[in-house]
Amino acid sequence: MNNFEFKNPTKIIFGKDEIAKLANEIPDNAKVLMLYGGGSIKKNGIYKQVKDALSVFDIVEFAGIPSNPEYEILMEALEIIKAQNITFLLAVGGGSVIDGTKFLSAAAKYEGETPWDLLAQRKPVFNGLPFGTVLTLPATGSEMNGGFVITRRETKEKLATGGPALFPQFSILDPQVISSIPQNQIANGLADSFTHVLEQYMTFPNQSLLQDRFAESILQTIVEVAPVIMNDATDYDAAANFMWSCTMALNGLIGQGVSQDWAIHMMGHELTALFGIDHAQTLAIVAPSHYRYNIESKKEKLAQYAERVWGITEGTIEEKSNAGIEKTEDFFHSLGIKTKLSEYTEDYENAAGIIENRFIERGWKGIGEHGKVSPGDVATLLR
Amino acid sequence: MNNFEFKNPTKIIFGKDEIAKLANEIPDNAKVLMLYGGGSIKKNGIYKQVKDALSVFDIVEFAGIPSNPEYEILMEALEIIKAQNITFLLAVGGGSVIDGTKFLSAAAKYEGETPWDLLAQRKPVFNGLPFGTVLTLPATGSEMNGGFVITRRETKEKLATGGPALFPQFSILDPQVISSIPQNQIANGLADSFTHVLEQYMTFPNQSLLQDRFAESILQTIVEVAPVIMNDATDYDAAANFMWSCTMALNGLIGQGVSQDWAIHMMGHELTALFGIDHAQTLAIVAPSHYRYNIESKKEKLAQYAERVWGITEGTIEEKSNAGIEKTEDFFHSLGIKTKLSEYTEDYENAAGIIENRFIERGWKGIGEHGKVSPGDVATLLR
Repeated sequence: MNNFEFKNPTKIIFGKDEIAKLANEIPDNAKVLMLYGGGSIKKNGIYKQVKDALSVFDIVEFAGIPSNPEYEILMEALEIIKAQNITFLLAVGGGSVIDGTKFLSAAAKYEGETPWDLLAQRKPVFNGLPFGTVLTLPATGSEMNGGFVITRRETKEKLATGGPALFPQFSILDPQVISSIPQNQIANGLADSFTHVLEQYMTFPNQSLLQDRFAESILQTIVEVAPVIMNDATDYDAAANFMWSCTMALNGLIGQGVSQDWAIHMMGHELTALFGIDHAQTLAIVAPSHYRYNIESKKEKLAQYAERVWGITEGTIEEKSNAGIEKTEDFFHSLGIKTKLSEYTEDYENAAGIIENRFIERGWKGIGEHGKVSPGDVATLLR
Repeated sequence: MNNFEFKNPTKIIFGKDEIAKLANEIPDNAKVLMLYGGGSIKKNGIYKQVKDALSVFDIVEFAGIPSNPEYEILMEALEIIKAQNITFLLAVGGGSVIDGTKFLSAAAKYEGETPWDLLAQRKPVFNGLPFGTVLTLPATGSEMNGGFVITRRETKEKLATGGPALFPQFSILDPQVISSIPQNQIANGLADSFTHVLEQYMTFPNQSLLQDRFAESILQTIVEVAPVIMNDATDYDAAANFMWSCTMALNGLIGQGVSQDWAIHMMGHELTALFGIDHAQTLAIVAPSHYRYNIESKKEKLAQYAERVWGITEGTIEEKSNAGIEKTEDFFHSLGIKTKLSEYTEDYENAAGIIENRFIERGWKGIGEHGKVSPGDVATLLR
């Protein structure tokens, strides 16, 4: 096990009707900016629950944060924060709204000229405006970590950063919100959280027995609840296990002391930036190819995964690891998610080359747990 | 899954030679009281590592906190805290030293007459002197939770309490400390952490798929590393997995949203208070009897445990659950821990009745996850 430092101070308030507790968690004299997305929270009743809970507060609203939160739109919110002396941010939404709010938390305290530098320079953020979240879409885990990803439309870039100042003060997770989420978004949440675990796990063996088993526990649980929640989004127990699994998949715990990969996300972000494909779909496109291309360095772990998560006990390490990759592909398909880029766009032929060049331009010589997946490898495996 | 609130703000600094980072974690102008036990830290070099790391600080020392930290001794340390205007406590030790330090953290800010009331009244503690820990003995998990247990010699009582103010600011976990721990204390740590998981897990099924699997992950890991670390305490990887498992066993995570038991600990504490038997040994004495006596209400979970932790896939639920109890007993024996009270004391005949009366006196009508294990049941199962 590698040395590590772990601190996750976010308070989780989990369960039925817990949104009503919101007022207890925000400082009495706060001037609150409430941020949300396209307005689905007005249809499903969450908007009203939040406003009712916060009736005693002075609240400004900022709606319209899109999925893959855009820098240009967030800069409008930043103007409001400064003009109105906002002291507390409240994200009501999924990963995009929460990530956008984290960017704003950092940008509000940033002393440089251009807040995009926070992302371009990837320096850890140690100072931010306090914020909390009400999660409406389980997927990214952003509700219990300090990271965020922002897209810049003009340059077609999607970059990630974060820091210890960007953990939410609190996150309220009411699994009942899942009952009104469209099925394709539930599928994306399942695929996204599943891949978050894989990125921290599918490397090489014997790094940590406990983190391995925790990772496998989340994968097994997602596999177990996926058909239940896809079939009936009002199943509270399945919803609760799905929601908590998404949070645990990316709150830092399973990644402590182990080498991580994240190459799938780095390639996937480019596909979203270039083609506007949903984040989770890009992961489903890249993951199987990434594992097939890098099977030699990952086969022991792939075989362990095949055994422990999918119950494949027969065959050689190579056979098991290939079976594990197939099971992964089948799992994405079972969610109705396609795994070939050509199924999403006709314009895919140049994608590999463009992404290769972008990685070279950014000076990324090698990605993955060994830092050995070169831009050339990226192009080849994407092709 | 039940509703829950979870916040664990302790910063974990884990790994080789991390004690050297101590000075970064304590406020510059702090007046530090360093607390430790019987002096083993002077023999194994940890005392010197700590003092070297803190050479720029103004440090007062308080040595001699015994296992099952005693109220009477801690009250002497409280005098020092008050007389010398101590602003930060540093526990260097195992669960006893850390628990004693938590009591002092609470007692230093307590406004009532008698700090024992903190335990007698069991009110959550919301105000404490800040403190950190350097863990020298993995077992209790006290390094990453807000609970503590104190013994009062004059009344032969051992009581527990805690609160949100009593999470350590930081805990430094260097697995290398394990190489100098006597084998019987390593055995106790393995049995103690194993039982901590059981208390949060061995209840009834279908409460939470993920917490169940996390609990099983810790149990499997303890079972896997136990023979390795018992055989060679210098095996770093086994030590690291053992140490992190002990922390994860009782940092709150696996107990969120599920009904818990803790009857074994409540009975075990009485055996320690009455006979001075090691805490972990009392758990090994009580656990098998507790599960046999309450097998009807626990059999589904006992069978799941037998299957997933011990690989027992054949037989009826009753057979599997009995096999699970036997495996548990065998595991304690494999650590060299005896599981019968009569193997520890000749004076055991009246113990059941004394404990029954104590539970009645305290008004404890029923313990366990259903609150249905009565003082009479306690007497019967202990007999």
